[in-house]
Amino acid sequence: MTNTNITPIGVEELGRRAKEVSRLLAMAGSDQKNLALTKMAEELLAAEEEILAANKLDLQNAEQAGMSRAFMDRLALDRKRLQDMADGLLALQALPDPIGEEIKRWHAAEDIEIIQQRVPIGVVGIIYEARPNVTADAAGICLKTGNAVLLRGGSDAINSNLAVGAALRRGLAAADLPQDAVQIVADTSREEAARMMTLNRYIDVLIPRGGAGLIQAVLRQASVPVIETGAGNCHIYIESTARADWAKAILLNAKVQRPAVCNAVETMLIDEACAGNLLPDLAAALIAAGVEIRGCERTCQILQAAGVAVTPAEEADFATEYNDLIIACRVVQDYKQAVAHINQYNTRHSECIVTDDEQAAAYFRGMVDAAAVYVNTSTRFSDGFQYGFGAEIGISTQKLHARGPMGLLAMTSYKYLINGVGQVRP
Amino acid sequence: MTNTNITPIGVEELGRRAKEVSRLLAMAGSDQKNLALTKMAEELLAAEEEILAANKLDLQNAEQAGMSRAFMDRLALDRKRLQDMADGLLALQALPDPIGEEIKRWHAAEDIEIIQQRVPIGVVGIIYEARPNVTADAAGICLKTGNAVLLRGGSDAINSNLAVGAALRRGLAAADLPQDAVQIVADTSREEAARMMTLNRYIDVLIPRGGAGLIQAVLRQASVPVIETGAGNCHIYIESTARADWAKAILLNAKVQRPAVCNAVETMLIDEACAGNLLPDLAAALIAAGVEIRGCERTCQILQAAGVAVTPAEEADFATEYNDLIIACRVVQDYKQAVAHINQYNTRHSECIVTDDEQAAAYFRGMVDAAAVYVNTSTRFSDGFQYGFGAEIGISTQKLHARGPMGLLAMTSYKYLINGVGQVRP
Repeated sequence: MTNTNITPIGVEELGRRAKEVSRLLAMAGSDQKNLALTKMAEELLAAEEEILAANKLDLQNAEQAGMSRAFMDRLALDRKRLQDMADGLLALQALPDPIGEEIKRWHAAEDIEIIQQRVPIGVVGIIYEARPNVTADAAGICLKTGNAVLLRGGSDAINSNLAVGAALRRGLAAADLPQDAVQIVADTSREEAARMMTLNRYIDVLIPRGGAGLIQAVLRQASVPVIETGAGNCHIYIESTARADWAKAILLNAKVQRPAVCNAVETMLIDEACAGNLLPDLAAALIAAGVEIRGCERTCQILQAAGVAVTPAEEADFATEYNDLIIACRVVQDYKQAVAHINQYNTRHSECIVTDDEQAAAYFRGMVDAAAVYVNTSTRFSDGFQYGFGAEIGISTQKLHARGPMGLLAMTSYKYLINGVGQVRP
Repeated sequence: MTNTNITPIGVEELGRRAKEVSRLLAMAGSDQKNLALTKMAEELLAAEEEILAANKLDLQNAEQAGMSRAFMDRLALDRKRLQDMADGLLALQALPDPIGEEIKRWHAAEDIEIIQQRVPIGVVGIIYEARPNVTADAAGICLKTGNAVLLRGGSDAINSNLAVGAALRRGLAAADLPQDAVQIVADTSREEAARMMTLNRYIDVLIPRGGAGLIQAVLRQASVPVIETGAGNCHIYIESTARADWAKAILLNAKVQRPAVCNAVETMLIDEACAGNLLPDLAAALIAAGVEIRGCERTCQILQAAGVAVTPAEEADFATEYNDLIIACRVVQDYKQAVAHINQYNTRHSECIVTDDEQAAAYFRGMVDAAAVYVNTSTRFSDGFQYGFGAEIGISTQKLHARGPMGLLAMTSYKYLINGVGQVRP
């Protein structure tokens, strides 16, 4: 049931195997990849007993280690979660296969023909924490896009991940695809993670998925290219012409609906011109929803005068991604000050303005440095499924390669194919 | 004339300034950017005396340090090279401005409207060696694409770079654009370079331009995303059905025309079936062009029997980017072995097959892992100008963001602009 007594294969050898099969995967047709997704889903469900037993072991270990309830909840699998994982794999089948697409074709110097063709990235390394569902989600997206994947989950979930991985690999074999398209890094030591992060020879990209600590550690250590994901210090800015009903609905949705996720709002900015009018009611609604308000000096004056509870904010509050039912609030002079505040403190994720003034909206759209800029709608839409991508491997907060919610296209690269009849460069 | 007596501004402050002006540059119109390119070109030519005097100082220092003739040649500026730099800036004006382009627009969840818009990357850091012309080239491409740039050239070229940079900055000012769009990192110490490579807060991408040592050092040290460029261990594979005249023309062009550049060929692979027939003549032509041949055992047998000079190759030869008039040669059984060899030794740059067999060509195109795959034409075409991009910031050998010759588009990112009427996520 658990492989912990077997000496695991080192990540360098896993990488070598992944690179080798990645070339075959790149040539696999859509039908074969879709068949593999079916088989992977089937094997996942067929292995329910084995997977839940392995998961139970992880849960017991986590309990003994005194992990939090939230941690245990992320780690836990049950029939429903397995079914969700299987459904996620099956849903990928309906999406168009981006691989092989001719992006562009033209004739260039000496009349050579150049075709820019979409290809897989090659070998993707996912470094994640204690969510075993990532194992199936990431494996499915990588397979659909013709990439081999090395999955390095946390040590707390290793038994679950190995059991899920074994089922996925049986599914690949059943579809006549190489099992090494999906490999679990069984050695979850820090040393092995460090080796993985510098395995430029075999790994083409690393995608860390987890908390800020994990992501920063990968950025620091990796020489393999990294797509930075996740951290979301997002803002809602209520401009002086904002409709009060929109402001309230968007604020509550963005702060309260799911406070622990990266696209939730952490700071509200509000124009001085409308703060006296709107802030007491907005704050009361937040408090009614269980939110603590940490306000700047002006915010405190307004709310205290209105008899609404508020804690004074410190500078650090504006730089904090609470991931909790807390919001920082600052009164600003105008949209220029709001944008300056956002660009100083944000993590380039998702930002929202509520306004009826097109000039303010245009300035905000152009000047705010973020993957997604929302005018009169909630930052909670920053999500691959909400965007209609049908899949999501993460939300990029860097500007290279992919930005914002990443669907299948983010898992592709391109190559130039040049056809000639003996031409040489003059 | 030289700023070496002034305490230079630290790279963190340079980065902060670059980030600040990058937001204004992102909103600058095409006309204003094109005007700035004109003014930059004019100021460059107007500063001839100042720049050449600074360059003379660098050349004297290099001579005292006993640098090679090739090094001195790369470092040296004269009126002709200044004119080339100015012409390069002017040529950028005619290229379409990619910034602001609407890449895609669609309606998604709750009928929110999503616009994917092309934007600058933001702040680009260029780390390069002793070619002062890179200063003007990179500054021009970054400006055209609305990016601020930090230029960190080698200490050997610092006086030249500061003089060129000062002229470019006067050009920006003359076009009413912020001078800090182009900044020279005057402190060329290793410590300052290390700080620059971890300045994630202000720098969005690093592009190293230079030898393999420089590029590897940046990859190892940087936490800022890097675009790996340059290294080219490129191959020409002569398949058994290859036309002899095409094989010879392409081989000579790819090896001899400019052996020191990254798109030159370093290894020839040739099918056993045609090696006896073609190899002596091809080798003789190479030797006549001054090329040394390092052959595998079978190559040596064939060439020695034909009375053609050859040195036995060692394993290391196949992994070497000579950048010189040397070629490694290996006889292979078939196209599968050729592709396996290439994928083992290449640097993912440019690869060529000469063949009359579409099946071999298709396998080669699909299976070879390289940015550019050439069928019956020379690897020397791997170049932004030859591809018709009108500019080139480097040739990417990684798969993330940009691959192969990088023109203006490679210097852009995108953002999602979402417009709503009060929608929230259900």
